[in-house]
Amino acid sequence: MSERYSQTLERWHEFIKTLDASILSEILADDVKLHSPFVWKPKNGKQAAIAILTTVTEVFQEFSYVREIRSENQFCLEFAAKVSEFDLRGVDLIELDDNGKIIDFEVMIRPANALAALGAAMSKKLAEKGLL
Amino acid sequence: MSERYSQTLERWHEFIKTLDASILSEILADDVKLHSPFVWKPKNGKQAAIAILTTVTEVFQEFSYVREIRSENQFCLEFAAKVSEFDLRGVDLIELDDNGKIIDFEVMIRPANALAALGAAMSKKLAEKGLL
Repeated sequence: MSERYSQTLERWHEFIKTLDASILSEILADDVKLHSPFVWKPKNGKQAAIAILTTVTEVFQEFSYVREIRSENQFCLEFAAKVSEFDLRGVDLIELDDNGKIIDFEVMIRPANALAALGAAMSKKLAEKGLL
Repeated sequence: MSERYSQTLERWHEFIKTLDASILSEILADDVKLHSPFVWKPKNGKQAAIAILTTVTEVFQEFSYVREIRSENQFCLEFAAKVSEFDLRGVDLIELDDNGKIIDFEVMIRPANALAALGAAMSKKLAEKGLL
């Protein structure tokens, strides 16, 4: 079981490196919930999650993971990135189901000015793609 | 070693239950860094951290931890709380030094409206205490 969890984590890192959306399609559960740093209500389902996760990875500059805390099927991956002139830190809180698929994905960002800049950049990019 | 880490975590939960600041004095390292969700620059030192951590616990309503992810000396503690009418989630990312003291404490909050409400409530409370 725990090997299956590790494989999903490896594939996630592979997605971050390649931005190949087909990897997301493989590792996200159909009914994954995505909790964004901006709004309370989660986005439901694989297609919504793929749209958001691919867009946010296009918006971040100088993205890198800086800390990994994991127990069993729960991961806390902390990252550093830039948006416009702002440095930021964030976490991906990832929960896997029994099949090793990502069933819950929650993102938090600090500090507040970088969160605001990220929100503006995300809205612009999603609008360009006709997704907003 | 890992027992020492667990003891610190237990004492942290004891602080959350009792709001007894002397517990913080015991488990924080003298040169702890506190990274707030509001500003990039950390606050340095035990006294600054105690002031902020005691104040924020006074501001949160209906606070409870909902998820704990840990490996060795690193903890990711996710909490739920309310501020004014807003529901929020947050994480405490806690790193312990070799003595089991908290050397780094980072907080992130979502969603954005709750973060803004928390910032306003924190400023008011810190000003009342003459700390801002």
